Amino acid sequence: MAVAAYYEGERRIRQGQCLPRPPSAGEVQLRVSHCGICGTDLHIFHGAMDARVQMPLVMGHEMSGTVHAAGADVEGFTPGDRVVVMPLEPCHNCPACAAGHSHICHNLNFLGIDTPGAFQSYWTVPAFSLHRVPASLSLRHGALIEPLAVACHDVRLADVRAGDQVVVLGGGPIGMLVALVARQAGADVLISEINPYRVDLARRLSFAALNPRDDDLLATVLRRTGGAGADIVFEVSGSQAGASVMSELLRTRGLAVVVAIFAQPPKLDLFRFFWRELRLQGARVYESQDFAAAIELAADGGLPLDELITDVRPLSALQAGFEDMEKGGRFMKILLEVP
Amino acid sequence: MAVAAYYEGERRIRQGQCLPRPPSAGEVQLRVSHCGICGTDLHIFHGAMDARVQMPLVMGHEMSGTVHAAGADVEGFTPGDRVVVMPLEPCHNCPACAAGHSHICHNLNFLGIDTPGAFQSYWTVPAFSLHRVPASLSLRHGALIEPLAVACHDVRLADVRAGDQVVVLGGGPIGMLVALVARQAGADVLISEINPYRVDLARRLSFAALNPRDDDLLATVLRRTGGAGADIVFEVSGSQAGASVMSELLRTRGLAVVVAIFAQPPKLDLFRFFWRELRLQGARVYESQDFAAAIELAADGGLPLDELITDVRPLSALQAGFEDMEKGGRFMKILLEVP
Repeated sequence: MAVAAYYEGERRIRQGQCLPRPPSAGEVQLRVSHCGICGTDLHIFHGAMDARVQMPLVMGHEMSGTVHAAGADVEGFTPGDRVVVMPLEPCHNCPACAAGHSHICHNLNFLGIDTPGAFQSYWTVPAFSLHRVPASLSLRHGALIEPLAVACHDVRLADVRAGDQVVVLGGGPIGMLVALVARQAGADVLISEINPYRVDLARRLSFAALNPRDDDLLATVLRRTGGAGADIVFEVSGSQAGASVMSELLRTRGLAVVVAIFAQPPKLDLFRFFWRELRLQGARVYESQDFAAAIELAADGGLPLDELITDVRPLSALQAGFEDMEKGGRFMKILLEVP
Repeated sequence: MAVAAYYEGERRIRQGQCLPRPPSAGEVQLRVSHCGICGTDLHIFHGAMDARVQMPLVMGHEMSGTVHAAGADVEGFTPGDRVVVMPLEPCHNCPACAAGHSHICHNLNFLGIDTPGAFQSYWTVPAFSLHRVPASLSLRHGALIEPLAVACHDVRLADVRAGDQVVVLGGGPIGMLVALVARQAGADVLISEINPYRVDLARRLSFAALNPRDDDLLATVLRRTGGAGADIVFEVSGSQAGASVMSELLRTRGLAVVVAIFAQPPKLDLFRFFWRELRLQGARVYESQDFAAAIELAADGGLPLDELITDVRPLSALQAGFEDMEKGGRFMKILLEVP
């Protein structure tokens, strides 16, 4: 029996049956294996995106699965193929697409937000969104490819080099993945995070880590960098505190990468940006090469992905998963197994 | 008789005699010809930098002149040589200097702010600060080399290319010079300025220009760019309005260059920076190559520098010059002739 989890507004998830949609030309129908809960899903659950989404909504875009059926015109995919989805459908018609930045298309259809997602047994998606995953990558880890691709994108845009001094502000799932990818690129990474559980986790993963409520972040960064400041700061906290401190932490001509979603415009010390000729770069989602890099990195086995998965639960636990996430505490990535 | 203009605090300039300081080893004594009044000088006049400067202070760093005497060890300069000064003396010992960014040295001695400047008949400076100017460049125009070098630095850091759509927020002397240098690099430039005199001047110089209090800046930029937004915005206004609008005006992955001094941290729409993967770059003073570029550009004769010089007055008019500048109105660059 095919099932789905439906967001119906007002912090309510209903579990129910669903009728799988057969693939049209150019589409592939997937059998979903695992799907992670993203911060954006939580945002939707909170009602913050009710004006954008159509209810009832099947969310979910951090998934892994296998090909169930391919539509007409689709070549190269056969049932049983193990895949993940890059959930972006650009318009190919706007200024961003024309400039080659279709991943942040002005009219982007984000699968699982603007159209149905992967919190269901069968998910029908455009064939162009599929990336194969090798046999060496478990489908459990496959569900981390999408957030890992975010981290690969962020680190690539920042042009992280071996020996770079990197600070990550915010050690949630994305911050931790950014830290892991930056370290893989040869950077020396410090994580700043206010949740003690996450600080401990960062240390277990052998990162330098501190809680800025207990320790002096600026003094620590200056000590680690001989007084020069960090080469790159990834702002993944979305907080005024993060926006304020990032320009203090950077070396002359250093780079701040804005990864977090700032619901309100924070105050930013533009004098400091001027004075030290600092740079800032917004970084959003990923491009196809970032998905490929994430798959290669995860399949390599060198990343401690199991440490980031704090729970694997059945799809029926989605509502409880949201409620646990908003409590904070001992959670990183919660994965759902889709029946 | 050697004279100087002394800032004595509390908006007071005293004209007086001075004893020229003979050049030590490695120094050159200049006979000052012309010196412009900079916005930073006005800032000092207002008392905003009293904690930094030593009074009585001889300000002035936008100068031209001739070599009067060279100290021991100085080779290659003889009396009568026509020169301008790049007024930066780095420590060669801090992290910025070590990283090759000595122009924004952490312990920078800015000649004319931290040590005496060019509002005096004879000015003794380090020989390394000198740039020769060719005979084709008048000493009057030579006094514009320093602010023109700022513009060359800004445009170089922004990597302005032919065909780029550029917006300059703020059409004062620096904004106008940035616009001129960007146009020289092949950009299509729009200037936004609230002073009607400066809007008219920009139009006389054949720039697209508007007053954002009268015309819709965002709609104009979108119309000029086929809905895409500008490639580069130079923020030269130092205002919250400028900081707010710059992220609206930029195309996907466009660049905001922070040229202005923001006395207070403005609110910045970091969501927009994230959403459109915008970039920001602080740009301060200049490097030697920018001085060389400015001299070449000015000596070429292609820039309408006379249009930017609204007044040439004697040094004794410095106090009145400050008072006129703060009134706004019909002033751009005020030059002083030094007796």
